Amino acid sequence: MALNHPFDPLTPREITQAADIVRNALHGHALDFRVITLKEPRKQEMLAFLERERHEKMPAQRPPREAWVQITVKGASGTTDFYEMVVDLDSAAVTRQDHLVGKHPYIDSAYMQAVEKACRSDPRIEAEIQKLKLPAGATVVVEPWAYATDGVNDMSERTSMCWFYMRLLDHLDANYYAYPLDLCAEVSENLEVTKIYYLPSAANDTVSENARPYDHNKVHATELSEYYPSLRPPPRTTTKPYQVIQPEGPSFQIEGNLLSWEKWTMRVGFNYREGLTLHNIRYEDRSLFYRLSLAEMFVPYGDPRSPYPRKGAFDLGNDGAGINANNLRLGCDCLGLIKYFDGWHTTKSGEPLKLPNAVCCHEQDDGILWKHTNHRTQNAAVTRSRILVLQTIITVSNYEYIFAFHFGQDASIHYEVRATGILSTAPINVGDKVDYGTVVAPGVLAPYHQHLFSLRIDPAIDGPANSLQVEESHAMPINDPTIHNPFGVGYHTKSDIVATESGLDLDFTTNRTFKIINENQMNPITGTPVGFKLLPCYSQMLLAHPQSYHAKRSEFGSHAVWVTRYKDDELYPAGRHTMQSLGGEGIASVIQQRKAASQGDTNVRNEDIVVWHTFGSTHNPRIEDWPVMPSEKMIVGLKPVNFFSGNPGLDVAVSTQENNKSVLFQGGFCGRFQTLRGVESIIGVD
Amino acid sequence: MALNHPFDPLTPREITQAADIVRNALHGHALDFRVITLKEPRKQEMLAFLERERHEKMPAQRPPREAWVQITVKGASGTTDFYEMVVDLDSAAVTRQDHLVGKHPYIDSAYMQAVEKACRSDPRIEAEIQKLKLPAGATVVVEPWAYATDGVNDMSERTSMCWFYMRLLDHLDANYYAYPLDLCAEVSENLEVTKIYYLPSAANDTVSENARPYDHNKVHATELSEYYPSLRPPPRTTTKPYQVIQPEGPSFQIEGNLLSWEKWTMRVGFNYREGLTLHNIRYEDRSLFYRLSLAEMFVPYGDPRSPYPRKGAFDLGNDGAGINANNLRLGCDCLGLIKYFDGWHTTKSGEPLKLPNAVCCHEQDDGILWKHTNHRTQNAAVTRSRILVLQTIITVSNYEYIFAFHFGQDASIHYEVRATGILSTAPINVGDKVDYGTVVAPGVLAPYHQHLFSLRIDPAIDGPANSLQVEESHAMPINDPTIHNPFGVGYHTKSDIVATESGLDLDFTTNRTFKIINENQMNPITGTPVGFKLLPCYSQMLLAHPQSYHAKRSEFGSHAVWVTRYKDDELYPAGRHTMQSLGGEGIASVIQQRKAASQGDTNVRNEDIVVWHTFGSTHNPRIEDWPVMPSEKMIVGLKPVNFFSGNPGLDVAVSTQENNKSVLFQGGFCGRFQTLRGVESIIGVD
Repeated sequence: MALNHPFDPLTPREITQAADIVRNALHGHALDFRVITLKEPRKQEMLAFLERERHEKMPAQRPPREAWVQITVKGASGTTDFYEMVVDLDSAAVTRQDHLVGKHPYIDSAYMQAVEKACRSDPRIEAEIQKLKLPAGATVVVEPWAYATDGVNDMSERTSMCWFYMRLLDHLDANYYAYPLDLCAEVSENLEVTKIYYLPSAANDTVSENARPYDHNKVHATELSEYYPSLRPPPRTTTKPYQVIQPEGPSFQIEGNLLSWEKWTMRVGFNYREGLTLHNIRYEDRSLFYRLSLAEMFVPYGDPRSPYPRKGAFDLGNDGAGINANNLRLGCDCLGLIKYFDGWHTTKSGEPLKLPNAVCCHEQDDGILWKHTNHRTQNAAVTRSRILVLQTIITVSNYEYIFAFHFGQDASIHYEVRATGILSTAPINVGDKVDYGTVVAPGVLAPYHQHLFSLRIDPAIDGPANSLQVEESHAMPINDPTIHNPFGVGYHTKSDIVATESGLDLDFTTNRTFKIINENQMNPITGTPVGFKLLPCYSQMLLAHPQSYHAKRSEFGSHAVWVTRYKDDELYPAGRHTMQSLGGEGIASVIQQRKAASQGDTNVRNEDIVVWHTFGSTHNPRIEDWPVMPSEKMIVGLKPVNFFSGNPGLDVAVSTQENNKSVLFQGGFCGRFQTLRGVESIIGVD
Repeated sequence: MALNHPFDPLTPREITQAADIVRNALHGHALDFRVITLKEPRKQEMLAFLERERHEKMPAQRPPREAWVQITVKGASGTTDFYEMVVDLDSAAVTRQDHLVGKHPYIDSAYMQAVEKACRSDPRIEAEIQKLKLPAGATVVVEPWAYATDGVNDMSERTSMCWFYMRLLDHLDANYYAYPLDLCAEVSENLEVTKIYYLPSAANDTVSENARPYDHNKVHATELSEYYPSLRPPPRTTTKPYQVIQPEGPSFQIEGNLLSWEKWTMRVGFNYREGLTLHNIRYEDRSLFYRLSLAEMFVPYGDPRSPYPRKGAFDLGNDGAGINANNLRLGCDCLGLIKYFDGWHTTKSGEPLKLPNAVCCHEQDDGILWKHTNHRTQNAAVTRSRILVLQTIITVSNYEYIFAFHFGQDASIHYEVRATGILSTAPINVGDKVDYGTVVAPGVLAPYHQHLFSLRIDPAIDGPANSLQVEESHAMPINDPTIHNPFGVGYHTKSDIVATESGLDLDFTTNRTFKIINENQMNPITGTPVGFKLLPCYSQMLLAHPQSYHAKRSEFGSHAVWVTRYKDDELYPAGRHTMQSLGGEGIASVIQQRKAASQGDTNVRNEDIVVWHTFGSTHNPRIEDWPVMPSEKMIVGLKPVNFFSGNPGLDVAVSTQENNKSVLFQGGFCGRFQTLRGVESIIGVD
């Protein structure tokens, strides 16, 4: 059997093995497995391995193969204990076991279904539903959410918030978010309904005291509220088919999880929490990034009225980008020649659980890579840009996110996030307006909210010792006798290197540029350190007040760029356990604690560093985002800056019609057409 | 003969007709035609026409068909007179004639060739070239530039700056920018060399006093300095062909210059200066934009040393995006099923000059438009996004720009600019560095510069009376007894409507959003005015000092968003005549003058307004931009905001493999493959 690569996710066999080891160690206890995932090798060992691997195909000396395991154990008194363990698969031993008190594992969908059921079977809830006097045929739908800490409840116990909607059409895919009900319930760990709320519904309500019958003016047209094809009028027929073919196959090669494309190599990883991860990203075998991953995502809602401050979702820490990854479909989620990667997770009982087609890999044409026409000879040289896309899509209740890394032939990387799906809605009286939400249908409020993402960039630009340089462009003074700028047009760059761990802000007005450089490797031509620069996504930071739980729990949301010293297993900028977290475990606290401890290891110059980019959107919904949102794109880039000796895509062949087989359209109304493969074709008639 | 549409560019026949009318009017004078282009109809008349056109196919009552004409006339004393005229084609009369004193027409490429020749045939230049002791076989190339006003020369006469390079390889497409020479010359209107400079070359040079022989350490490897395919090593062969087919033809229809695609209609225009223009852009027949165009572009260089402050190019006003539009090639500049539009210009003698394939029109797949998976049923609905692209590419000496409007099925418009081509270079001593440029090859300095674009948005959101609303998102105060925000998580929007003509700045920290709204049209569901919002490209504004000529000449570069009252023919934010302009003719001056005149027509609320977005890049070159730049993308968006009653792309059919015919890749190394059209195919072997 072929050995795994140390970066490979755990195989099904290893998941089974880890579960067995844990079961043996905790013999006699009733365990629920929540996580069995790769504990990535310690970086020092891994760097040594990667170096050996460059010289021998399968180095014998390997880092230990370890698993992170999370389990819950039902205690005798009905309580649930939460454990986190490290399992050494080589020695078949549990090497670390932490009993986590006051922490909660990520959302358990089976438990959430039980919460929903508990809500529906509670007679007090049923009585409240009766008071609503819903339209005939309506079906109530309960949507349980993890509880966003607001300081009101005792946080030691898992609590769920249940929001109520209804389906008006007798179809399981009817859009119940179109009918939010004035009701909400709190459910305890033991599945008891502990509180029932009437939601505020008028513009000036702060809390509602009474049950109100459903306002039938809120029933709106199917065309405006349904997105599911069979519930909609027939779709437009004007969009003609568009197909991508690669007659000679793809430009990528795949060997296990090793992906090679053009001059890039990288290893594709996957785990329940971050979903897609990328490892040991190299270009022409030069090291660029040790690891790239989406590290966290926070969605705080801006409606100030209770209980809405409990809507604040850590979509990675609480939900998991891996466990919620869609099973991608050929021809739908992905166009062209597609390679899929499966993910593996664990069932409650410790069996491997396949997450099929969790990541897709394909190429796209991306327009023109470079062009120049010599105006003297009129000779043009033009190359088209091909990109390699690694995409994963997640569904988190109502919303979806499409995450994609784009690799370019110019050695650039772009990380594209698209937000789509359905807005989380709340009731509002017909005719009312508020300044923290948009009325998207009669009686349907789409509250303002933010999406804050943290992209974790673990650089290894020509090696692990890197620095973060902040460069700005400034006008030269015009009347300074020491500066030659007689015509006032001069400008120059000034730069600093960040000395210690910190959070930093963007400033486009000074063209502030964050460069990850290797001060030990000078570019022989430019005379400057080799580097990659961040092309940030300019975004408003967290709006919640610093004293709020939202802010305390999502410290990464206060600055756009963070730089920290690399530490093994330090992967999550809002802390490892975000469910009902109390704050103080995020990136700012960690930096502060390390600085207070004066360990001297907060220096980030010429060290093994990690750069974290916070970006996202202040999403004040448009009605055009309803009932399903057109994708909203957010893009972050990483580009070489004085890393190479010239344009890395200079050797891409110029484009030819022979290869690209485009077709000329002539005339206006398409009466007839022909496509003769291999020859230039003409479509349409005059 | 079919009548032209009033927005149609002048036809070849009309160009000939206009030239005849002018020749008749100026009988006996030796004329050179510089411009014969459509003078677009007065908006009031045009709006009435468009309204009539919605009810009858070819309204008989039409705005007058007029041409703008620019001519130069050689005077008796050898001087050149510059005239601008309006020609009424219906009445065959010159209806306006302005003798422009102190103004210069845009760059005349034939004259520039004469400048080049004058330089090369001047014995003093030849003597200087001899002093350089160039390598054997070198060919000197003179690159004439329009003179950027710096206040030193008398500006009343046209002056050209000649920069010197050499070709080392004996090939006309050798990259001479790789070998900038320490020489520069100033050439007068009458083609006399009036001044010769030795360029500063050391880091601390402010001006150079002596001729220096060429430093042979500056001769670098062909692989690093040549881009032209036949001068390069063989290209990479790893990029496999990628083809786009549309077996049922395109989704667009074209009738003359009327373009219909999905629910969009618009008219495609073109002129020598702006290149591609778009008119009467409607969605589902609702009016959105009267006109969209790139209005100007300024490229100031940041090297403070004389004579470099004379490098500052108005690429539209001086050069022309239309006249420099590339002849686009099938399969190279455009992939898929392509419709081309030709442009028409005039020769010196007034003959129509065809600019073939100046604009291409095609569709692209743009990933996922929207998706939702019902987590209860696991049923997913996913639609792919198709976009319509209208692209034009221009070459301005060394640089190229790729301009593209992207129309979406979600009623969004994106304007994408890509900068590519070759950096303008200057000599530097081997081993030296400066903080206003990057050494991209031994002895080759790529000076810092900016690209500042002005996108002119002439909105007609549900009609011509529009307003510019500035909305920001702010945290609610946490301890204000008048505001309900008990948990500190609340945030809301505040907005103002701009009252009078002004320049405004971006601020992502407050999520400042510029919305073009129609206050007379309320969205019945949201209860807010219908609108479109600007998704700006966050960019540093002009760095040159406000007192500099660069700043005075490019006033639009000082703010990111400008709003003015619509005036016929007010199309250019740096003024109509930018060649050697002295400043004070730009958008800020016009606003100031109008305000000073207190004409009361500077109100922009609920008026016919124009919004101008300044964006671009502070381009501090990377070595990766050399010898030809990988495309640098800049993107501006326009999106509906509470304009429709829901997602405008909701009725796009969900994606199916039946239509999209994607292909599954299995296994690693592509040994064999098959593509069976119409069935799911498998490529590769394990």
